[in-house]
Amino acid sequence: MTAEPRARHELEPERIVRLEQDAVVLLDQRRLPDDEVELRCASATEVADAIRVMAIRGAPAIGVAAAYGYALAAAQGHDLDEAYETLASARPTAVNLRWALDEMRSDPTRERARVLHVREVERCRRMAAHAAGLVPPAARVLTHCNTGGLATGGYGTALGAIRAAWEAGLIDQVWVDETRPRLQGARLTAWELETLDIPFAVIADGAAASLMASGEVDCIFTGADRIAANGDTANKIGTYALALAAGHHALPFYVVAPTSTLDAEAETGAQIPIEERDADEVSTRFPSRNPAFDVTPAGLISAIVTEEGVHRAPYASSLPTPVRSAT
Amino acid sequence: MTAEPRARHELEPERIVRLEQDAVVLLDQRRLPDDEVELRCASATEVADAIRVMAIRGAPAIGVAAAYGYALAAAQGHDLDEAYETLASARPTAVNLRWALDEMRSDPTRERARVLHVREVERCRRMAAHAAGLVPPAARVLTHCNTGGLATGGYGTALGAIRAAWEAGLIDQVWVDETRPRLQGARLTAWELETLDIPFAVIADGAAASLMASGEVDCIFTGADRIAANGDTANKIGTYALALAAGHHALPFYVVAPTSTLDAEAETGAQIPIEERDADEVSTRFPSRNPAFDVTPAGLISAIVTEEGVHRAPYASSLPTPVRSAT
Repeated sequence: MTAEPRARHELEPERIVRLEQDAVVLLDQRRLPDDEVELRCASATEVADAIRVMAIRGAPAIGVAAAYGYALAAAQGHDLDEAYETLASARPTAVNLRWALDEMRSDPTRERARVLHVREVERCRRMAAHAAGLVPPAARVLTHCNTGGLATGGYGTALGAIRAAWEAGLIDQVWVDETRPRLQGARLTAWELETLDIPFAVIADGAAASLMASGEVDCIFTGADRIAANGDTANKIGTYALALAAGHHALPFYVVAPTSTLDAEAETGAQIPIEERDADEVSTRFPSRNPAFDVTPAGLISAIVTEEGVHRAPYASSLPTPVRSAT
Repeated sequence: MTAEPRARHELEPERIVRLEQDAVVLLDQRRLPDDEVELRCASATEVADAIRVMAIRGAPAIGVAAAYGYALAAAQGHDLDEAYETLASARPTAVNLRWALDEMRSDPTRERARVLHVREVERCRRMAAHAAGLVPPAARVLTHCNTGGLATGGYGTALGAIRAAWEAGLIDQVWVDETRPRLQGARLTAWELETLDIPFAVIADGAAASLMASGEVDCIFTGADRIAANGDTANKIGTYALALAAGHHALPFYVVAPTSTLDAEAETGAQIPIEERDADEVSTRFPSRNPAFDVTPAGLISAIVTEEGVHRAPYASSLPTPVRSAT
């Protein structure tokens, strides 16, 4: 691997999610990587359903989809309080969802929703640029779940950081946790990295600690679904185990997420509600438990990167105050 | 849950693997839990194939199957050196395999192989009785992979300990890591626990640390494929991450394995060869890596339980010397 800048490959934001005249149209992420199929949602209720069944997922992307869904409800003359509740309750852990809807309340237009989408992509590019500065040359980077263009409606958070570092010639290898039970890593992150021509290998979630022990990982980048005021971070189930292993091996563990993910009302991770999803996602044959997220304590996080910069502990003072309408 | 002794349910050893006149017959574990289908192996080569494709798996069980395969080769007048090599090379990490074959070399009869099998089951019952003594009342126990009757040709090691503790009225709940990529937990351990009527739930491997954090786990029991002289333990991929999480939460992490798993020739875990299995087990669509085992350092293990008793650190002096022909 050389340190020459790489060619940029793109996943256009409107390919992930867009607002048309009579529908929110999104790339159905349940069908990837095998089929690239679009799903048309003709109402806010159908957008909420698409979010609930994870046809679109990732905290920033569902915020954008919800904003489009709300604008659609407004254009259709529907009850906006009802649209708000329907959309906000689709995924309880993702705080962006509610914030995107709060943004829309004061200006429920198509234009406002599109501005939110564009700004989400710009935010991702800013945080990716900050985070790429943390990546050493010839890095072997490990990531979890999917935090790329698919998850954000644009460029990506943790995976955006890896994209930016790759474009700067810093990446030798990306290890992709397959991310059970829904395999967002094995399906979506792998699909994005293949599309972007970045070298990678998928691993079972249980193999990550072993790769750290054998010296094949230099740093870990994950996203966040919600970050408490003290830096405790809720993210896809399996993140906490990764952070524990990274801590044991003295490897940097970075969280990359927009300020819209910050939840000043949750003092610590204990105040973040953890969604339990349908047990059938784990096993259709036997009893099972399916917590969708876990909380990584701030003490295990080397830095939290937002569009405003790189924030280090103590996070209660270093994290920016979430800014809504100004961004 | 009361502390009354439970009724015993059985998985008969000959249902797992047995020697018939012209074949080694085994329950095809690839087909569980959906179908209970027997596989007939008419030669040592076919037994080695069955081990390689994991129709039978688990270090003690493949030792028994290999012993039967060797006895079959002897009865068929085949070259026994060739049979030894064919069988021994089927799974490189499991030390029991080679030891069972060493046992057979001096007495390559059907009777000898059957004695090895019976003694394997007796060993499991002894280690399970020792290990059950470590389980507190109303315990929520977490386990990984499959270490039950299926894995041992009889009663089980770590899962045998859980069975014995259940029979003593000590178990409230068993958490079963699904154990990617081959899902031995979700398929085999779940099937055994259902058969034995022990309450359990399957979880994604990445959820185990989160359950520990929420106070829903009291202790962890895993098996071992090979144990070095210093107590470093090779076991199914994902075990090391569990041990790190258990250590962080100050939860007891127990390894249950027969003395035949002890490898006095490996001073530390660094000398244990780690099998890399076919990457297709992780992903058929994208590049992947598939280490089948990892090594848990002795310092993370609260106790190692063998048929001889409960051994504590420092393991170099507490572990028994592996005894072969005398057992």
